[in-house]
Amino acid sequence: METIIEKFLEIAIILVAAKIGAELMRRINQPAVIGELIVGIIIGYYGLGLLPHFEKGDVVSTLAEIGVVLLLFEVGLETNLEEFVELGSTSILVALIGVVAPFALGYGAIYALGLGGDNQFEIALFVGAAMTATSVGITARVFGDLGALKSKEAKTIIGAAVVDDILGLLILTVVAGLLGSTGEFALVDLAIITGKALGFLIVVVILGRKLSPIIFNFFVKIPSPGTFITGSFIFAMLLGAAAHFVGLHPIVGAFAGGVIAAESKMTKRIRSEMKPLNFLLVPIFFVYIGSEVNIQTLASPEVFLYGMLVSLLAFVGKYVSALGAMGKGFNTSLIGIGMSPRGEVGLIFVAVATTTLSSIITEDIISIIIWMVIVTTVIAPILLNRILQKVPLSERDDDERFETPVVE
Amino acid sequence: METIIEKFLEIAIILVAAKIGAELMRRINQPAVIGELIVGIIIGYYGLGLLPHFEKGDVVSTLAEIGVVLLLFEVGLETNLEEFVELGSTSILVALIGVVAPFALGYGAIYALGLGGDNQFEIALFVGAAMTATSVGITARVFGDLGALKSKEAKTIIGAAVVDDILGLLILTVVAGLLGSTGEFALVDLAIITGKALGFLIVVVILGRKLSPIIFNFFVKIPSPGTFITGSFIFAMLLGAAAHFVGLHPIVGAFAGGVIAAESKMTKRIRSEMKPLNFLLVPIFFVYIGSEVNIQTLASPEVFLYGMLVSLLAFVGKYVSALGAMGKGFNTSLIGIGMSPRGEVGLIFVAVATTTLSSIITEDIISIIIWMVIVTTVIAPILLNRILQKVPLSERDDDERFETPVVE
Repeated sequence: METIIEKFLEIAIILVAAKIGAELMRRINQPAVIGELIVGIIIGYYGLGLLPHFEKGDVVSTLAEIGVVLLLFEVGLETNLEEFVELGSTSILVALIGVVAPFALGYGAIYALGLGGDNQFEIALFVGAAMTATSVGITARVFGDLGALKSKEAKTIIGAAVVDDILGLLILTVVAGLLGSTGEFALVDLAIITGKALGFLIVVVILGRKLSPIIFNFFVKIPSPGTFITGSFIFAMLLGAAAHFVGLHPIVGAFAGGVIAAESKMTKRIRSEMKPLNFLLVPIFFVYIGSEVNIQTLASPEVFLYGMLVSLLAFVGKYVSALGAMGKGFNTSLIGIGMSPRGEVGLIFVAVATTTLSSIITEDIISIIIWMVIVTTVIAPILLNRILQKVPLSERDDDERFETPVVE
Repeated sequence: METIIEKFLEIAIILVAAKIGAELMRRINQPAVIGELIVGIIIGYYGLGLLPHFEKGDVVSTLAEIGVVLLLFEVGLETNLEEFVELGSTSILVALIGVVAPFALGYGAIYALGLGGDNQFEIALFVGAAMTATSVGITARVFGDLGALKSKEAKTIIGAAVVDDILGLLILTVVAGLLGSTGEFALVDLAIITGKALGFLIVVVILGRKLSPIIFNFFVKIPSPGTFITGSFIFAMLLGAAAHFVGLHPIVGAFAGGVIAAESKMTKRIRSEMKPLNFLLVPIFFVYIGSEVNIQTLASPEVFLYGMLVSLLAFVGKYVSALGAMGKGFNTSLIGIGMSPRGEVGLIFVAVATTTLSSIITEDIISIIIWMVIVTTVIAPILLNRILQKVPLSERDDDERFETPVVE
């Protein structure tokens, strides 16, 4: 019983801390995810020591992984396949520049600075990759708070951010696969892993579009209570596990699972029944990641300086993505800044680095990425608020589709 | 990652099995909890081996314990303090006989048969104690299915069952405390543990009645999303942990937590937000208990025979509790049978036996208790259905208050 009570207390401490972090951030108009990460860093093993160092497969680390699977499932659920096609060239162009530019800047900087030590190439690759994602949730929230979700800038950014989420996950999968495989880097590996990832997504989406309405209708038809929520949960978990078995990260499977679950046309019910689970488990993921960060490394002058440099490059890399929208009557500053926050997707890179790539990615590098995630995520709402309050936008109102994602 | 995927799969297997068990039982008009227990026995470590032997503090055992804490929290939530006072002498008399008679029969039989080996006294005490509880949920469900919840028999049984739930938990706490303490049995210990348990409940209820409206109003007032569900969850967990620290089982704290949470007058919201969690975690508890049962021991002729004998005594013990309602125009058969199912509370005794008392309570004894729980729980709905279909009852309709508890 003693050990189980310990786990109860660990979970309670994490949830209370997450709530405090989220609420403090809300009061200064910052995303909850940053608050959860920071309290994790403060109370964690290397900080105040209120939490132990969690082994993989331990209760808390497992709940955290379930949390991130549910988070990606929810992101997938919000990703409408058909809207993609309609997005138009602007969003896609912004998305592509927004992946290539930060990657090039990050890769180049780490390589040029010689930060990678013996694993120069691998580490430059990983840091570059970690800079590619854009957090849909955080940008959508800031525009939403200002009633500006229907502006064409917001629509462009959100479209581009969804594309970058997917590209970011693909890049993560490929990079993690490359770094995880022993031996020399070979183009063959790159091709195999990319092929696997794309193949998995395509097979899941094609099969899933047909099967998912049948599966979710089946859940609805079984009368014993709780079948729908249990079924949806198992669905997300098993797609996560399936991705693992073809050599991909579970979050890729969970994301694909969310995309096809949406095809059941029961998105609203799935989201509302899963919500309490997400409220409890997603914050555990962010506090958990924070708790594994060595606060002394994070605060060391050298890491801090490199962190600020990489943050600047990450910001610039996304800022130039607005070039994709030039000359079409957009406020390009808004787009450039709106693409900047890495938020939860950036932290998923950190989680993968600490779980499966800890032999290659050093604590210093992880801390630099964390600085990059924090700075790009915190700076965006501040700048956006300032610009949006000055600039009158074409359309302002609330948009149901982008209701507060759990991560905020 | 490998270990985490293993945990994902364990959880998925448990949930799928629980759903199958629950749905099969529903089709033959039996309580879901029995289906969950049986599939657990079948697929568990000693059965098909689809699940490993779970260590305490492992992911699954922790989720199961959280599940039982949430279950008891929900039971507490349904327990209205004021209704107790109005219950009248009939319910209370039925409740008292329903505790004393099964205890005496169980204690006497185990002692007389010499089943306890070296721990004769302790084991007789434990088996007697395990026979005292009555499952409110299962009886309420059967009466509800037949639209007979407002009959005076149903009200009497449900009142008595709630009292027996509380007495059962108190007895479990005292017996577990006595058996857990090293050294000789002494009346002093009995007094101390009983005093502690009663003291804890009284202090929690008195303080809680005042504090709980303040606490839950505080949760409502914090604007960051998910505060209410997170707060309610932490509330249940911390009361469980508090009970542990004064030497009681966490479920006693969770139950008390539910009782005082109801004083916030937000029962409906708490219940509806907690529901998805309960749907997922409560079945994990029952499958988990089943998975720890040695199917060979359970099926051995000797254990089976003793199991049937103890089941018979358990049935008779509760049947005679109807004496408390004699001569007042009740259908006493209905009351006697309605008091019989041990359901989830009986299984909590099993869980305590396997977690904290495994050095005293043998596998044989645990298997006998499991038989007793299964038989008394399965037989009651069958007999009640038969009688209720013949007897016209004074009032028949649906009663919102006793909406399907999650355990069914």
